[in-house]
Amino acid sequence: MLRAIADPTRRAVVERLAKSPAAVSDLLAMFSMALPSFLQHLRILENAGVVTSSKHGRVRTFALRPGGLDVLHLWLGEQRTPAETRADRLGIHLARTSNQGDKQ
Amino acid sequence: MLRAIADPTRRAVVERLAKSPAAVSDLLAMFSMALPSFLQHLRILENAGVVTSSKHGRVRTFALRPGGLDVLHLWLGEQRTPAETRADRLGIHLARTSNQGDKQ
Repeated sequence: MLRAIADPTRRAVVERLAKSPAAVSDLLAMFSMALPSFLQHLRILENAGVVTSSKHGRVRTFALRPGGLDVLHLWLGEQRTPAETRADRLGIHLARTSNQGDKQ
Repeated sequence: MLRAIADPTRRAVVERLAKSPAAVSDLLAMFSMALPSFLQHLRILENAGVVTSSKHGRVRTFALRPGGLDVLHLWLGEQRTPAETRADRLGIHLARTSNQGDKQ
């Protein structure tokens, strides 16, 4: 999955699909790339579980797979130094404290 | 940077360094790998800004670079579908509401 999103074209596809699902032709229009190469990128993203696709008639639509990037998000959350974890806790504490006080 | 952490050995090094800095020899002891290959992995992580190293006498110590993975963390946070963003907001709302009520 990291290899899937290590490519700038594929990251751009992810960023586009985060807004809304899109047909292959709409996605292709964003990139100056031959269709076969582009389909290969989409296939890599789909095999990595980052996107899903569905076919309606002759139109294949791609969408971000909900939670498809969660495993990476969780892993990153775990790779925090003790100092960063303490800073996080302080942030949470301050957010809670300000909740009880003035605004919100 | 994604390519740097796309390798399982390098991810294991990151996981180890998230606990505490470590000397090269201590890190090497965790992996059955020749020193030159292992140093190459460390170099890739350092060039990607994920880890830093410092030399004291003859001992080189590696540490996770604070904030080194933040850019990826932020990017992932942005790649959320509208449904996921709504779920996040609901989670935050519920956390705030429960703060005002019973426990904590």
